[in-house]
Amino acid sequence: MWAGNHDADHETNTSTFSLLFVIIFVMSLHSFFNPVSIVVIGVSDNPKKVGYLVAKNCIEQGYKGELYFVNPKHDTLLGKKVYKSIADIDKPIDLAVLALPADISLGLLDELHTKGVKNVVMYAAGFKETSSEGQEKEELLIKKAAQYGMTILGPNCLGFVSTVSQANVTFLKYPAPKGNIGLISQSGALGSLMVDYLVNHKNFGFSYLVSLGNKSVIDESHLLEFLGEDQDTQVIAMYLEDVKDGERFKKTLASVTKKKPVVILKSGATEAGSQAAVSHTGSMMGDDAVYSSVFRQFGAIRADKFYEFMSLLKIFSYGRIPSSKDILILSNAGGIGVLLTDDLVKNDMSLVTISEDMKQEIIRSMGGDKISVHNPIDLLGDASAFDYKQAIASTIQQNQVGAVMILLTPQANTEIAETAKVIGQAAEHFDKAIYPVFMGEKSVGNAHALFEEMKIASFFSYDSLPLALAKILRYEKWKRMQADMGSQPVIQTHNPFQIPENKKLLNLEESMDLVHSSGIPAIALYLIKSVEDLIKKADELGYPLVAKIASETITHKTDVKGIYTNITNEKSLFHAWDSLTAITGEKKIYIQQMAHGYELIVGGKRDRVFGPVMLVGLGGIYAELLKETVHYIYPLSLKEFHAQLEKTKLLKLIRGFRSRKPLSVEDLYDIVMRVGMLLHTNPRISEIDINPLMVDEGQPIAVDGRVVL
Amino acid sequence: MWAGNHDADHETNTSTFSLLFVIIFVMSLHSFFNPVSIVVIGVSDNPKKVGYLVAKNCIEQGYKGELYFVNPKHDTLLGKKVYKSIADIDKPIDLAVLALPADISLGLLDELHTKGVKNVVMYAAGFKETSSEGQEKEELLIKKAAQYGMTILGPNCLGFVSTVSQANVTFLKYPAPKGNIGLISQSGALGSLMVDYLVNHKNFGFSYLVSLGNKSVIDESHLLEFLGEDQDTQVIAMYLEDVKDGERFKKTLASVTKKKPVVILKSGATEAGSQAAVSHTGSMMGDDAVYSSVFRQFGAIRADKFYEFMSLLKIFSYGRIPSSKDILILSNAGGIGVLLTDDLVKNDMSLVTISEDMKQEIIRSMGGDKISVHNPIDLLGDASAFDYKQAIASTIQQNQVGAVMILLTPQANTEIAETAKVIGQAAEHFDKAIYPVFMGEKSVGNAHALFEEMKIASFFSYDSLPLALAKILRYEKWKRMQADMGSQPVIQTHNPFQIPENKKLLNLEESMDLVHSSGIPAIALYLIKSVEDLIKKADELGYPLVAKIASETITHKTDVKGIYTNITNEKSLFHAWDSLTAITGEKKIYIQQMAHGYELIVGGKRDRVFGPVMLVGLGGIYAELLKETVHYIYPLSLKEFHAQLEKTKLLKLIRGFRSRKPLSVEDLYDIVMRVGMLLHTNPRISEIDINPLMVDEGQPIAVDGRVVL
Repeated sequence: MWAGNHDADHETNTSTFSLLFVIIFVMSLHSFFNPVSIVVIGVSDNPKKVGYLVAKNCIEQGYKGELYFVNPKHDTLLGKKVYKSIADIDKPIDLAVLALPADISLGLLDELHTKGVKNVVMYAAGFKETSSEGQEKEELLIKKAAQYGMTILGPNCLGFVSTVSQANVTFLKYPAPKGNIGLISQSGALGSLMVDYLVNHKNFGFSYLVSLGNKSVIDESHLLEFLGEDQDTQVIAMYLEDVKDGERFKKTLASVTKKKPVVILKSGATEAGSQAAVSHTGSMMGDDAVYSSVFRQFGAIRADKFYEFMSLLKIFSYGRIPSSKDILILSNAGGIGVLLTDDLVKNDMSLVTISEDMKQEIIRSMGGDKISVHNPIDLLGDASAFDYKQAIASTIQQNQVGAVMILLTPQANTEIAETAKVIGQAAEHFDKAIYPVFMGEKSVGNAHALFEEMKIASFFSYDSLPLALAKILRYEKWKRMQADMGSQPVIQTHNPFQIPENKKLLNLEESMDLVHSSGIPAIALYLIKSVEDLIKKADELGYPLVAKIASETITHKTDVKGIYTNITNEKSLFHAWDSLTAITGEKKIYIQQMAHGYELIVGGKRDRVFGPVMLVGLGGIYAELLKETVHYIYPLSLKEFHAQLEKTKLLKLIRGFRSRKPLSVEDLYDIVMRVGMLLHTNPRISEIDINPLMVDEGQPIAVDGRVVL
Repeated sequence: MWAGNHDADHETNTSTFSLLFVIIFVMSLHSFFNPVSIVVIGVSDNPKKVGYLVAKNCIEQGYKGELYFVNPKHDTLLGKKVYKSIADIDKPIDLAVLALPADISLGLLDELHTKGVKNVVMYAAGFKETSSEGQEKEELLIKKAAQYGMTILGPNCLGFVSTVSQANVTFLKYPAPKGNIGLISQSGALGSLMVDYLVNHKNFGFSYLVSLGNKSVIDESHLLEFLGEDQDTQVIAMYLEDVKDGERFKKTLASVTKKKPVVILKSGATEAGSQAAVSHTGSMMGDDAVYSSVFRQFGAIRADKFYEFMSLLKIFSYGRIPSSKDILILSNAGGIGVLLTDDLVKNDMSLVTISEDMKQEIIRSMGGDKISVHNPIDLLGDASAFDYKQAIASTIQQNQVGAVMILLTPQANTEIAETAKVIGQAAEHFDKAIYPVFMGEKSVGNAHALFEEMKIASFFSYDSLPLALAKILRYEKWKRMQADMGSQPVIQTHNPFQIPENKKLLNLEESMDLVHSSGIPAIALYLIKSVEDLIKKADELGYPLVAKIASETITHKTDVKGIYTNITNEKSLFHAWDSLTAITGEKKIYIQQMAHGYELIVGGKRDRVFGPVMLVGLGGIYAELLKETVHYIYPLSLKEFHAQLEKTKLLKLIRGFRSRKPLSVEDLYDIVMRVGMLLHTNPRISEIDINPLMVDEGQPIAVDGRVVL
């Protein structure tokens, strides 16, 4: 069905070329972020100025390479010689950092080129983020970069830190702590915030911290690729506001997430879609929803809040993740164990059922009377470190335990430090993930510091943990799925329907023809131009019938009472004819046979950044009301299609319950892919709605459609 | 319609009596928690024992009354004389605290009675929470308490703290900080946890902290009533696992929440309902869902997570709440301002639109070029304390601003302490709520301490804030609604339907009769016992028809293909007859006219704790699939009914959209109340489903029903 890949050779060539380009660029990014020599141009002795802070940070972070300062007004700064100009430096320069205003920075590129500098960091604001004048400057910048073969970070950025080479060319307040998180941030403030948060912690820091700024040359996809390959980076953290090149981002993300986790904080979830949406699909799938779909389909983990983001990074950074969604809880506070249970279950995780063996083992080692042996295991308020130890020892090795959460509240005799040590020993001894949730503040701070020393991800409350773990488990499942996915289906590009010129909207007949031409089952639609035709066609088709308004401009038929369903006799049919022709003033209507079953909506639109995207959801009156939809990026495999349907209410409906015959997921996939294909092969189409797609006894059929050009 | 309240006089008498009882009890609770003298029986010199910790806490909290210690084995403890027995104390004793095992505690009650002691705290475990033997002990305890007129807190509790009288008869680790939060906790651990959290904070503490234990005598409703009246308590915090007396709790809660906020953390959200549910209603409304409905309908605020709980308490404790849901955000980090915006909007709040006047004012005071003048207002990364000050000054007095959130991330030159002071001055100067969100850790700790000193609710991240504010605004709206609610409707108790004896389930005909008898519009149902009857009735009614299985035992008709809809001719009708009679083996089926429109479900059940509860939701196949339901506690006013429908998808459906005629909320309310009335007046009924209630052109009609006895 998806045969006939005539473009295969061309595709391969393009891919090889892109791959080669990316490898070269990524290699050069390694030397960009780990330069042999750095010149800071525009250093300052004013401690509030960027030119001072950058100089100071590079020294304080302990940069080992050659560091040069330039400013014609100074002789020395921070104990180092200050050169009058870059021409005065008679050594090669790897990286130039420009702590100068926009125009001066821009003007300096020629001199840097003459000096042979290939790598540049530009802090200056005043480019495309400000005005059309700034936009022109940015275009000039990009042109010069291309002309000189320069790699530029920024402008309008905070710079970067590499804890690998100890280069810190940022104006951050503190040196950045070393660790295995690679941060790519489209906001300098988020970088500052994370450093402020992490300097108080141990074993929790960055391999690289890169502020993207305006992404004139280096963008998020380059960095993603670089950090994906980087040995010092175990988890990639991103803060994004937009994506520069959707196609490249999708490809890069999909390949990086197979190797290491990418956790993304993205703002703009409630911004209205910037395209005016004509179709249901358009209105139900705004820009941010498409970002979410891209992240999900290509394996990134989206965090919604700051502490959730930090919790995800902490777990990945320390490396222990649950082996399954079956959690064991040990607690010295029964009620809070139940609150944690509630939140785990709400997030699709489950509590391990204590087997009879485990129960006997616990009773043997701890005394049966003392605790209630069901999960969450309540060790009671006076639980000692030894009690915790025995409970861990008698449960953690059970196969069915995916992770152990150890809840502790500081009560009068709680042995907090000792319990922390017991957990540390258990973490050393066993591979399984252990997450201490030591609640409170005054008594538990030291325990958390100890956990960080031992690289155990601990938490002051359970608030973000279940959601974070649920997202991690979803990611692990995604990775397993990728491993045996095989190749993507190749889409048939044959499409005989000719899209009319000079139209912004196909009429109903054209829309249904287009849908049908793509191979989607569609109900026959008849344009009727006289009462005689009407009678004849009604006799031919038989009742019940549906009559619809025939108009080139009306898109929401029910708004104008432009649709009559379940017409069972001639009288009603004539009434429909009279009413519908009265609205348009033209002697024409559509009729079709009445379809039965339940209603779905299948649609697609062309996203400005990411190209064709599709949705499936509850249809008919419920489409806009309930917005129960699943979104897809084109193309995708059946497995991915299925994976995203899982746990949705939609899948329950499709699968059928009670005596209803199921709609096969394969059939639905086929329809969704054909909608995607229509968008993919017809650049003039911007939105497609099939609403409703009726499903009767498991058979789907398109009953109404709308196509926006 | 709801006229004829024959029980009115009786009601009034009961209420007066209850009120009197509660007033007396509440007055006695004040002296219970603020005793003139305390005896601690079973003091110990072992610092790990309850008998030591209680003695120490009472001294350390600074209790000013007479404090006596009793233990035959000691002479002095903590510098105080220890009596051999209570008989040796020749002064009157207000409160006796028993740090002794269960049996000894129980045995001591006689002696305490002889001594004239009326108030007792019992810590001992080993009562109903352990075994049937313990249950017997608890019953004996309750009997003795009644016999002696004793007020008992516990057993199996942590005791209580009153920062008013500085009595602390708990075995908490630290003295409890003074403040205006009244805590009622069914978990000692949660009390410990909150103290551990709050001792690190300033101006954030308790008026009373009471551990409920087994609630043998004093329960949550007594305490709620007491703290509701208490002048030192501004906000009531509860941790609950269950409620002892549903009726009393509902009444008390409704009256207290009109005066002050009640914030409840309750565990057990995911526990399966303990009653086996036969109806849809039963399965969709488990025990915990009923708790949520009670909290919502009677004005309590339910928190789901610990930090959310603490955030709510902090805001109420410091007293500034938003005057509307329109929030203004000032931020030195644009992207994070947008993340906060996303979360506000997700929680039904909105951002103030900056008016042209406000814009001019901001531009005038801050310089127009510098910032982007739309909300969230981005003051840029280098915002000074003065910038914040000017931005606050030029916006906070605008009428449309409900609250100001001030987001700060620590960047190189951020004036953190100065900005905190500026905010403090603004809070002093203006009445409006200001919530600083100073993010990070290392740099912002001091600022948060300063905010606590100034009683300004500040936050380290935005994570819990929007949800907490949304809940506060919902509570404020609830209070306003109560103010002009008028009296509850009185329900007509007339019900001519006789419920058959010896049945556990009404059959379809009986169910529909019952529903109809209550005044709910219901479609006529005909029991057909022969093919002749069938033809005759079909002629009489006209097509399309619906045929249903006639069975005393089958409850889910669609599971067995026991229903045929949209029968349009005799052939299909005969097919239905043959199939349905084949299933039951009996020559009988039901037929009815086919109803059109969309489907709702209306149902009710008798909750073990709270009595009749009702639900309305999407019906038909969508009922169980989507679980879009709204729950109600019987009885309620139309206003309350309407308030809970607001913002649900259900209300959108009912109101009609496009060309559909709306169903009046009054009509739906009427039906829901009649379901509640059926449960209220027929104690034998346990569950009622009307599913579907079809709605066509705004007219509702019950089409199928199920009643469980």
